[in-house]
Amino acid sequence: MSETGELAFKVSELDAGDELSSVRSRFVLDDVVYLDGNSLGALPAHVPGRVEDVVRRQWGELRIRSWEESGWWTAPERIGDLIAPLVGAGAGQIVVGDSTSVNVFKALVGAVRLARTGRAGPVRDEIVVDATTFPTDGYIAESAARMTGCTLRPVTPAQVPGVLGDRTAAVLLNHVDYRTGRLHDLPGLTSAVHAAGAVAVWDLCHSAGALPVGLDEHGVDLAVGCTYKYLNGGPGSPAYLYVRRELQDRFDSPLPGWNSHAEPFGMRPDYTPAEGASRGRVGTPDILSMLALEAALEVWDGVPVGSVRAKSLALTDFFLECVAAYVPAGRAESLTPVAHEERGSQVALRCPDAGEVMRRLIERGVVGDFRQPDILRFGFTPLYVGFADVERAARVLAEVLAEVPGEAAAQVPGEAPGETPGSGGRAG
Amino acid sequence: MSETGELAFKVSELDAGDELSSVRSRFVLDDVVYLDGNSLGALPAHVPGRVEDVVRRQWGELRIRSWEESGWWTAPERIGDLIAPLVGAGAGQIVVGDSTSVNVFKALVGAVRLARTGRAGPVRDEIVVDATTFPTDGYIAESAARMTGCTLRPVTPAQVPGVLGDRTAAVLLNHVDYRTGRLHDLPGLTSAVHAAGAVAVWDLCHSAGALPVGLDEHGVDLAVGCTYKYLNGGPGSPAYLYVRRELQDRFDSPLPGWNSHAEPFGMRPDYTPAEGASRGRVGTPDILSMLALEAALEVWDGVPVGSVRAKSLALTDFFLECVAAYVPAGRAESLTPVAHEERGSQVALRCPDAGEVMRRLIERGVVGDFRQPDILRFGFTPLYVGFADVERAARVLAEVLAEVPGEAAAQVPGEAPGETPGSGGRAG
Repeated sequence: MSETGELAFKVSELDAGDELSSVRSRFVLDDVVYLDGNSLGALPAHVPGRVEDVVRRQWGELRIRSWEESGWWTAPERIGDLIAPLVGAGAGQIVVGDSTSVNVFKALVGAVRLARTGRAGPVRDEIVVDATTFPTDGYIAESAARMTGCTLRPVTPAQVPGVLGDRTAAVLLNHVDYRTGRLHDLPGLTSAVHAAGAVAVWDLCHSAGALPVGLDEHGVDLAVGCTYKYLNGGPGSPAYLYVRRELQDRFDSPLPGWNSHAEPFGMRPDYTPAEGASRGRVGTPDILSMLALEAALEVWDGVPVGSVRAKSLALTDFFLECVAAYVPAGRAESLTPVAHEERGSQVALRCPDAGEVMRRLIERGVVGDFRQPDILRFGFTPLYVGFADVERAARVLAEVLAEVPGEAAAQVPGEAPGETPGSGGRAG
Repeated sequence: MSETGELAFKVSELDAGDELSSVRSRFVLDDVVYLDGNSLGALPAHVPGRVEDVVRRQWGELRIRSWEESGWWTAPERIGDLIAPLVGAGAGQIVVGDSTSVNVFKALVGAVRLARTGRAGPVRDEIVVDATTFPTDGYIAESAARMTGCTLRPVTPAQVPGVLGDRTAAVLLNHVDYRTGRLHDLPGLTSAVHAAGAVAVWDLCHSAGALPVGLDEHGVDLAVGCTYKYLNGGPGSPAYLYVRRELQDRFDSPLPGWNSHAEPFGMRPDYTPAEGASRGRVGTPDILSMLALEAALEVWDGVPVGSVRAKSLALTDFFLECVAAYVPAGRAESLTPVAHEERGSQVALRCPDAGEVMRRLIERGVVGDFRQPDILRFGFTPLYVGFADVERAARVLAEVLAEVPGEAAAQVPGEAPGETPGSGGRAG
C-alpha cells in the first residue's frame, strides 16, 4: 500500500473511533477543510435563529422591556457561568463583556492592586509579561505598568521562575502561544508566581474550549479569554474575566463603570462595587453579540472537555504524521512541540514562503492562516474537524509546497521579511 | 370645543406639517406610544435582514475571509464616518467600539495627557466633572483621576467656569442631562475650558441624533457617546470616540490594544500607535453589534439634523402644552427647561409616585421610564414619534394620575425615597 493509501486507511479507523463525530452536525460547514477555528470558530447551526429572535422579538417587539423580560441585564454573569465548566471554574467567578484587551487591562491593574494590599515587604513594582505573547497583552501590560507605577519585564515563560521576587506584583502569561501552539505549564508557573507572593493572570484565548484549564484546581488568580475561537461565539464576540472567588471582595477594577455598581439603578454619585463576578462589568452589555455567544455555547451540551482534549491531541498527532509522510523533509519545519503536555490544539509550520503557500491552500479549500513572518498556522477544533480533513489538509499542503519554489522564496534577505498585509486570518 | 378636542385638532395640523412623518415607516413599531427611545431606540425595519446576512453568509459561509471581504476590519472607522455628520464632525475623527464607559476612560486619560504636554505653568492635576452627570461618567472620572495623579472636582455645569484654572487638566461634561433633559451650553463651556488651557471632553449620549452638536465648529477636543438611544443601534451597541484631528497625533490612549497599532498584523512586540481615528481602537471589534448599527444608521438617509431638532422641540413643546391642559396643576412638575436653547429631546416630570405611575402608563401602552427617586422620563425621537403619540401620552398620563393617590404617595418621608428596583427602563 502506498503512503497515501495507508494514511487513508488510518483515517477511516480514526473517524470510526471518534466519539465526538456527531457534534460536527451542530455546525454550519461545507466542503472546505476549516483549520482556522483558532482564529474564528465556525457558525453553530442554531445561532442564526436565536439571533433573529433577539433582533425581531426581543428588541423589535419588547424593546426596553427585554432588559428584564428577556434576561438581557443578567446575561454577562449567566453566560460566564456557561463558560465556567469549560475552564474548570465554579459558578460565580466569570463575567462576560468587553474585548480581551480591555479585560487584560482590568485583570492586570487589578492584580497589581491585589499584590499591594495586605502583603509585607517592599512595594511590589514589577509586572512580568510573556515576551512571546500575542502582542496586545504586551501593549496593554505596558500601559498597566505605566499607570500603576510599575516596571514591565518581558521574558519568555521559561525564564519566569528565574525573575520572580519580592518586587514582582503580577505576572501575565498565555496558556497557549498563538504562533507556535506551545502549551505552557499553568499549574507549575502559577505555583511559582504564588511562591513569590505575586498574582497570576492567565490569557486563555488559545486554550479555552480546546483543552482542560483547571482554573480553580490550580489556584489561578485572574484570567481572561476571548470567545470567538474554540468557543465559536462569532466575530469579535465578547471576552470574559475570571476573578477567583476569594479575591473578589478585594478586586479593585480600573474600569468601575455603572454596571459594576452594587446598585446600578440607584444612580448614586458615589461608587460602591458590586459583590462577586459582577464587579468585573463596566458599561452596558453588547446584547446581540452576547446572546449569539450564549446560543453558541449550547454546542457543548454533553461534550466532556476531556474528550475534546483527547481528540485534539489525536488530530494534531495525525496531522504531524501526515505532514511527515507527504512533505519532503526540510521543506516545512514544525514549531509545535511533540510532547503532548506542551501542545495546544494547533500546529504551526515554518516555511519561508508561508504567505504564498497559505494563499494557495485557501484557494484549494484548506483554510488555515498565515502569521508574520513565515508561519503557517493550522487550528484543530475537535468539535467539527475530522481525521479525513486532517489527511486532506496535509495532502494539499504537500501539493502546494511542491509547486511553490521554496528555495527562491527562502532567499529573501534579512531576518525581518517584508510584511504581507491581508494574507491570512485575523484576530489573533 | 373641549380642551381635548382643541388639542386633537392641533394634532392633525402638526402631523400634517411634519416633514419627517414618512421616516416612521423605516422602523418596526406597533400601537404602543414609545417614548423610551432615549434609553433604547426602536428597531429599524431593515436591520433584521442585514443581521441575518452577517450571521449566515458573512460568518457562516465566508468565515475568516469576512475580515477583509465583508469589510469587518475597517468597520470601526467606516461606521464612525457615518456618525460624524450627525454630530457635526468631519470624516476621520470618530471610531466606533467598546462601551461608553470604556470610551470615557480613554478620552479622559487621553485628555489629561494632552493637557500635560507642551503647556507651560504648573502641573495640571485636576479633573472637573459634571456632578449631575450619568453616574458612570463620575465613577470612571474618579478612576481616571486616581490613575493619572489628579484630584476630581465634581461641580454642576453652571459652576464649571468658576472652578477652572491653571491646575485644570480636563473637564468632562454631559451635553444633555439624562434625568432632567437639560441641554448644556457646549460652545460656551468649551470656550471657557480652552481659555483655562484645559481639555474639553463631552458625553453626547443624550444629544447625538436628537439635535445638532457641532463638534468641529465649537472646537470640542474629545467626545464619546452611545449608539443605542437616538441612533437606534440596538441594545448595548458599540459606543464611539471622537478625537479632534489636530490632537490625534498626540492622543495617548490608556488602552493601546493591538487594533490601534500602526501595523496590527505586523505582530510586533513594540507598540507604535496608528495615525488618525484608529488610534482609539482597542481589541477585536464586536462585529454582529457593529454591523447592526451600520445598518441602523441608514435610517438617516436624507434626514437633516436641523429638521430633527425642529421637530424635537415641537414635540416637547406640544407635550408640555398637553400636560398643562390635561394634568391638574401641581400634580407633576416639569424639570425640563422651557427655553429651547436649554432643552434636549426629553421631558422629565417629577411626581412623588413616579414608579407606580410609570408602571400603569406602560400597562396602557405609553412607554417612558422611571428614574430614581421620583422622575418620569419621556424621550421624543423625532424619526418615529408623531404628534398624535404626544397627545395620547399626555391624555393617558392624566388618566393614570387621576387614579393614583399622589397625596398619599407624597407622604413617603425623607429626602431619599426607597429604591424600586426593576421599575422602568435600563441603560441610562
